This record gives sequence, C-alpha cells and structure tokens, in this order.
Amino acid sequence: MSHALDATDPLAPLRDRFLGTDSALVYLDGNSLGRPLKVTAERLQAFVREEWAGRLIRGWDEGWFDLPLTLGDELGRVCLGAASGQVTIGDSTTVLLYKLMRTAVAARPGRTEIVMDRDNFPTDRYLAEGVARECGLTIRWIETDTSAGATVEQVEDVVGEQTALVSLSHVSYRSAWIADVPAITDAAHRVGALVLWDLCHSVGAVDTQLDAWGVDLAAGCTYKYLNGGPGAPAFCYVAERHLDTFTQPIQGWLGNTDPFLMGPDYVPVTGIRRFTSGTPAVIGMLPVQDMVALIDEAGLDAVRAKSVQLTTTCLELADDHLASYGVSVASPRDPARRGGHVTLHHPRMREVVTALWQRDVLPDYRDPGGLRIGLSPLSTSYDELERGIEQVRVALAELP
Amino acid sequence: MSHALDATDPLAPLRDRFLGTDSALVYLDGNSLGRPLKVTAERLQAFVREEWAGRLIRGWDEGWFDLPLTLGDELGRVCLGAASGQVTIGDSTTVLLYKLMRTAVAARPGRTEIVMDRDNFPTDRYLAEGVARECGLTIRWIETDTSAGATVEQVEDVVGEQTALVSLSHVSYRSAWIADVPAITDAAHRVGALVLWDLCHSVGAVDTQLDAWGVDLAAGCTYKYLNGGPGAPAFCYVAERHLDTFTQPIQGWLGNTDPFLMGPDYVPVTGIRRFTSGTPAVIGMLPVQDMVALIDEAGLDAVRAKSVQLTTTCLELADDHLASYGVSVASPRDPARRGGHVTLHHPRMREVVTALWQRDVLPDYRDPGGLRIGLSPLSTSYDELERGIEQVRVALAELP
Repeated sequence: MSHALDATDPLAPLRDRFLGTDSALVYLDGNSLGRPLKVTAERLQAFVREEWAGRLIRGWDEGWFDLPLTLGDELGRVCLGAASGQVTIGDSTTVLLYKLMRTAVAARPGRTEIVMDRDNFPTDRYLAEGVARECGLTIRWIETDTSAGATVEQVEDVVGEQTALVSLSHVSYRSAWIADVPAITDAAHRVGALVLWDLCHSVGAVDTQLDAWGVDLAAGCTYKYLNGGPGAPAFCYVAERHLDTFTQPIQGWLGNTDPFLMGPDYVPVTGIRRFTSGTPAVIGMLPVQDMVALIDEAGLDAVRAKSVQLTTTCLELADDHLASYGVSVASPRDPARRGGHVTLHHPRMREVVTALWQRDVLPDYRDPGGLRIGLSPLSTSYDELERGIEQVRVALAELP
Repeated sequence: MSHALDATDPLAPLRDRFLGTDSALVYLDGNSLGRPLKVTAERLQAFVREEWAGRLIRGWDEGWFDLPLTLGDELGRVCLGAASGQVTIGDSTTVLLYKLMRTAVAARPGRTEIVMDRDNFPTDRYLAEGVARECGLTIRWIETDTSAGATVEQVEDVVGEQTALVSLSHVSYRSAWIADVPAITDAAHRVGALVLWDLCHSVGAVDTQLDAWGVDLAAGCTYKYLNGGPGAPAFCYVAERHLDTFTQPIQGWLGNTDPFLMGPDYVPVTGIRRFTSGTPAVIGMLPVQDMVALIDEAGLDAVRAKSVQLTTTCLELADDHLASYGVSVASPRDPARRGGHVTLHHPRMREVVTALWQRDVLPDYRDPGGLRIGLSPLSTSYDELERGIEQVRVALAELP
C-alpha cells in the first residue's frame, strides 16, 4: 500500500534533499527534531569560511543584524499567515514565551487571571506559574487530559473581565489535537483579554493564519518541522496593531532605538525588533532559512495535505495491525483536528519503544504509555512509516 | 620591530589555526567578533552530517543535553577560575544578565538599590533600569567616563545596607580598563550585597579567578575572545554556595527537576542547570568548544602574556607614529589594569575608520572619537598590528 502512495506523492522527490533518508533507519520523531537538509551541512561550512571568516564584523551590516527580521518575514509569509514586520527570530521558545506573557500582563493592567489548560506543554505551564506569581495574578486552569487541549466552550466558561491572557497551544504536544484558534481568539477578545498561542507543534506542518485569525501574540520553535537543528533559535509574532504600545521586560541593547549609539536611555525601537534582547544567533538561523525556503518551494498547502495523508495512513495501519494487540489511538480521528503526529497508547508502550530504538526505529515516547509518531511531511515516506508500524507490531508481539 | 616579536612569540604558530589569517586583510576587531578556527568549519559540517543526521534525537542523551554544563565546566576550568558545576552556556548575555539581576534582587529582599557605573555597557544599563523598575528598586549610579570603570573607593562610597547588587564590567568596553574585581567584591560583601560581573570583554583574554575572588554571579559572551561566531550563546556563573537557594525567573522545562517527566510543578533542579530555561543551542556551542580547547592548549597565562605584549606594542606604535597627529591614548598605561584592546582618541576618528575599512583594515569604532583596536591574542600577529597602525597613520595624514 505505502509504496503506491509514495509513487503518487508529488512531494516524494523532496525527501532526497534531507540527509540520512537513504539509510535503513526509520525516523518517526521529526516532531521533536527534524532531519537536516543536505544543503544545510554545506551552508554552515560555507558560512564559516566565506561570511564569518571573510566578511568578519562587516557581516553585521551586510545582513546578519537584520536576519531575525528578514527570516521572520519569510517564516511569516510561508508558514504563519503573517504580513511582514510582525515576526522575529531569537532566544528560545521558553524565553520568548516568558517575554510575551509578561508583555500581555503589562498590557492588561488590573486584570488578575491567566487562562491555560492543564495539559499544556510543561514549559508553558511553569512559565505561566512564574509570571503569575511575580505579577500577582492567578492561573485559571482549564481541565484537559492527554487527548485534547481546551475547547471554545471551555474557554468561554472561564474568561471574563478578570482575564488578562489566554495562553494555549495550537497543536497539543501529546495528542496532536488542533485547537480552534480563531474561535478561541474571538472568545478571549470578546472579554477584552489577549491570546498567546504556542505554535511549537504546528509550525511548518499545519496551516496557520495568524493575521486572519486576529491572534495577538504567538511563539514557537524551529527545530521540529522547521528542521533548524538541536536548540535552534525560536520565533515570536506580535500583531502589528500592538507594536506601538506593547513592550517586553528583557530590555537589551538590540531592542533599543539605534543600539550602536549606545546612549543613556532605553527607548524601545519601533516595530517587532523591540522584542529582541541580545545579539542574534546568526549561525543558528541558517538551517531554518534553508527549510523555510524548501517549504516555500513545496507550498504549505501541499505540505499539510501530505501531513494529513501520512497521519491518516498511520491510523489505518494502526487499526489494521496494532489494535489487536491492545493499542488505542489517542489522536483525533478527524483530520481537520489532527496535527502532524499520531499518538498511540498501550500500557506497555515504554518497553515497546525501548525495543524499537534497538532496531533503529526512532519514534518518541511520552508518559503515560504514549507512542508519538512524528511524521515530518517532507522527509518521511509512506514506506518508512509502514516499516515503522510493522516494527511496532513485531515489538508488541515479542513482549515478554 | 614587529616581525622580531612574531619570531619569538611562542603562540605565533597557533595563528595558522584560524581562517583568513593568510589574507592581506588587517583584522583589529577580534574584541567584537573573533575570527573562526579552521577546525570549526569542518566541525559544523561534520556535526550536521554525522551527529545531527546520524544520531538524530538520540544525540540528546549522548551529550547534547549536558553540553551546556560540560562545556561550562571546561570554560570554567580554562578561562574563569571556576570549579565544576558553576557555569552553564545558553541564551544571550542580555537574557542571562536579566536572569542574574532578578536572581540577586530576589536573594536580597528588602534592599532597595542596584549599584552600576554610568559608562557600563548599554545592555547592562538598560536591563538594570528595567529590573529596578519592575522590582521597585532604584539604580545608584557611579559616575564614570569613557576612560575607566568604577574604582573600589567609588563603590565603597555608595554601597550600604540598602544595596542588593553591585553590577559592573570586569573590562570596560570602551577603554579596556580592568576593574579590581576581588576588592570591589569584598566591598560589596562587607555590606551584605551581591556582585554580578559582566565578563564579555575579558573572558578568554584576561586572567579571571571567580572562585578565588569570591564572586557571586557572572555572565559573558562567547563571540569575542572565545570565537563562537556571530550571536553564539552566552555563559553564566553562579557560585556553588548559592546554588541551593538562588532561583531565576524564566522557569522553563529544562531548569526543572526531571524535565522529561513533564510533571505538574516546577521544582528547580539541583545545581547550575536551574539557570537554564529552554532547549540548549547545540550548534551554537560547537565553535566555542573548539576555541576553549585551543586556549587550554596554549594556556590562559600565555594568552594573557601575549595580550599584554600586543597592547603594549600597540601603545608604543601609537606614541611613536600617531601622537604627532593629535591621537591620544584612552586605555590604561598600566598593563595590569588594561584588557585585550586599546582605544585611541582623535576628534576625527570616525572619518579615519571609514578610510580604514575601505582599505581592508578593520578596527572598531565607538563614539566619541574612539578607535578600538581589538587584539585577539591567538589570531593577531605583531606584523598585522604594525600594518594596521601604519594605515591609521596614513589615514590621519590624508584627512582632507
């Protein structure tokens, strides 16, 4: 079956652009760390030899200084549905989420609550607790479990004039459940609250229209479906309508007006650059630039279509070959509500994953009992997926 | 003269390890962005092909996850006089200084002042103003100018039981003036205050003994004398005696106890790792690792000895060839008080620097009228320095 899907997949030729796709290893963890592009290996070496060694300090004026914004614009256009001037690259997701949470709280003085769901990604939860404590707010937790994030109705039930910020994930890290971003954003706005969306598990794989959806703030990482490499810098989005008034707390020299004047006072620079703090991580951005260019070449709609077909095929294979071993599907059946990965549950899945790793089949695992199958659309073939599921079946069959 | 110094320089052979040192270009801005090592270009390509592409997500358990701490330990041993377990790599200098300032304020509740000097680096000043405002403290400014940082006496004059933190630079970014870290640290401790030292302009070029000097907190960048490349991740030091009690505000998943348990509560992990927030920037750390290894090979004492000889030679050349054009020396004459760069003043120095850049002589410039000559000890030859000063003389002579 899978070979037929590969034969008719219009994006199949792009798989060769990635390093390692010609090996026997089955990689089903692209939602945690994407494979590198071949061009990235050459690009980094050439950057060191030609740009860094050759241009030296001149490189800053020749593109490096603006790279967070120029790459941010490209990312916004290709993946986020964001017009230029609203996205910048830098820091880690954690640091950017911290800045944006603080920004939102400062922009809604007198309001006392941050709304978040109980199963949001840990860094989001820990940050929100820290920000709430330091700013004197409380968290209003929406009770969710490992199968879904918050619904519109759940959000509507808890927001009100006390709500400063609703902070949720676009795609749930466990189940791949896709939140109804436009409806939840509207619900928050109706009570005067702001929204902050964590895009880590959606960016580069799921259609996203931040401008059209009216999102205020968003952030995400670049090492999953954007293939930026381990610990690549993150990105943030701040809607243009807020850029004149919103400020962030880590006021460093590169968020200042005319940083090289080195003047006495911090006056936040106009535009999205005010959300930067320190010196841009230029080398860390280069792999992201390569991948955004590839997604642009393929088209995000085509990427999303393949992602849906990959996860649909994965569910079919699981139903056909794994259900009889007691495996259940923890991801949404509705493809419109399902992101780029699939989570399968089994009480002994931890043992299964250990066995898989020993056979060079690399999926992800999250307690309790969750096998996360990440299907990076441009680097995963249907054949690779089918071989992986077969190895899951073998591992289940061989459980002692 | 200079060729003779090169002939007897025991570190001269190491200059060949850097890319671009065989070109005619004169690079005198290594205190802003160090040249890349040749091995770094190969290393990055090999990392992408072998580690990232080959090990994929397994790399995290095989060294990436611990790299901030293992490289931090190396940096501490080779350059900082810090025993293991007190240094971590990550974020930008700006973000780390923010965390450490917040840490210090939280650790000295009830105290109302942060002490800083007026000519400290902009990001330090802007951050301190932001932290003071959000935490309800005030800044006690020590009046310094472009020729020096704060003295022990100036610090003693302003600190008291109201002082939470004394935050200064080890080496002044304009003049290269070296602060008396142990004496100022003692002065702060006598009144119960903490110290935070910015090591950006000293690390890798100036002898530093954080443990012996009793420093509480320190941070710095890795793209100057540590040759980490544009925007490489920063480092921070927190003295072991504080690690059980000090916490920082950006409480992300990787500073938590057992992050992959993804549990409900943030409980800061034991040790220096609690000062990390998000996913480590692995690729950004690799060039730093290469350079720390080279400094270890050379020995920091030998590096500092060459640095002193380079700046001494620079002053001699300036006295002999530039003073007659009205150039004055803005850096300390005492080598024990002078860091790795030399600043020369002239009212028309901005024009001089523009002319130098056109001739592929690249020093740094800082208003007002300051030519900063950065003399990265391992990649700069005396001949290169002499050629650079001669071009400064020519540019001065040709001023219209």
